[in-house]
Amino acid sequence: MSQPQRPEKVVVDFRGGVIKPYTRKKEVRLSELREYFSNVEEAEKILLKGKDPLIYEYYEYIYSEAAGNLNLGLTIIYPGKIGKEYYMTKGHFHERDAAEFYFCLKGRGMLLMQNKDGEVSVVELEPGSLGYVPPGWGHRTINTGRGKLVFFFAYPSDAGHNYTIIKERGFAMIVVEEAKAPKVVPNPKYHKT
Amino acid sequence: MSQPQRPEKVVVDFRGGVIKPYTRKKEVRLSELREYFSNVEEAEKILLKGKDPLIYEYYEYIYSEAAGNLNLGLTIIYPGKIGKEYYMTKGHFHERDAAEFYFCLKGRGMLLMQNKDGEVSVVELEPGSLGYVPPGWGHRTINTGRGKLVFFFAYPSDAGHNYTIIKERGFAMIVVEEAKAPKVVPNPKYHKT
Repeated sequence: MSQPQRPEKVVVDFRGGVIKPYTRKKEVRLSELREYFSNVEEAEKILLKGKDPLIYEYYEYIYSEAAGNLNLGLTIIYPGKIGKEYYMTKGHFHERDAAEFYFCLKGRGMLLMQNKDGEVSVVELEPGSLGYVPPGWGHRTINTGRGKLVFFFAYPSDAGHNYTIIKERGFAMIVVEEAKAPKVVPNPKYHKT
Repeated sequence: MSQPQRPEKVVVDFRGGVIKPYTRKKEVRLSELREYFSNVEEAEKILLKGKDPLIYEYYEYIYSEAAGNLNLGLTIIYPGKIGKEYYMTKGHFHERDAAEFYFCLKGRGMLLMQNKDGEVSVVELEPGSLGYVPPGWGHRTINTGRGKLVFFFAYPSDAGHNYTIIKERGFAMIVVEEAKAPKVVPNPKYHKT
């Protein structure tokens, strides 16, 4: 094992949705997410117009990959919909038995979780609410509000990310706007196995 | 391994300094902290008057003790001093190689850290600042402001706590008020070994 490094200070801008310093910044645009939305035709239509809207971005602070450390960061999901479905993250499972939490700092949203048996759980996010994702639950975050959804996240540094399960199977439920309110409904494209 | 349990929602009251639900609440009064302050005579004098001020309290949320989980919570340190030394937490080391972070939500303070070689590091806390405590660093938090210091913390659930090292040896540095400002000075009572 290497010697412990020096402690560090990180500054989290609640409102602006920026964390400094960060190790990694990633912007995810519609072109990278098209297969994740239920209405792929609508996504294609937007892209064919030459538009490629920014759906979300995150700033991640990774102190060390060694076990026992915590990775943390800030995600901003922009407001918007593709068809009736709200802007959202891809979602992922962890490779190992590792929890994660999402601590909402600004905006309104939902944390959608699903375990490997397909059981679903939803935590509503508003400033001050924190969704705890237990080990074994895949998770995606959805912006159901009119402004930016900004949340802080943390997870064990050795968790590992698996995006394939969700890319291939989808989530059992999706979050759409119906009668001007968010509604959690079954995903017509969900592949159980 | 047991089956993963259901996800949960936790509500963090930034201002009030309360987290709900919580698994454990602990209030730490001067009588429990007297040996930790450099001016023990001053602490005894207050206690002899029949007073036992609340120095800090914390609300902890423990989802599961199983490895891969994260314990989280909120600490409130009240404003005040014992002699010239500001109100502070006991401080602890982790039993295992496990990080922790402190995310300040309200007030002003300092996160004082020390590794096993006695090397010291300080992170100043104000709303939005986060101190990352790497594995192997003992840590204590100090309220240097005029109001409550409220911060959110998280660490791996299997970290373990060792309070004995600090109880017996103290920190190499302490935080005192000098000319109305906080100053980090050597601890006259520090035992190097």
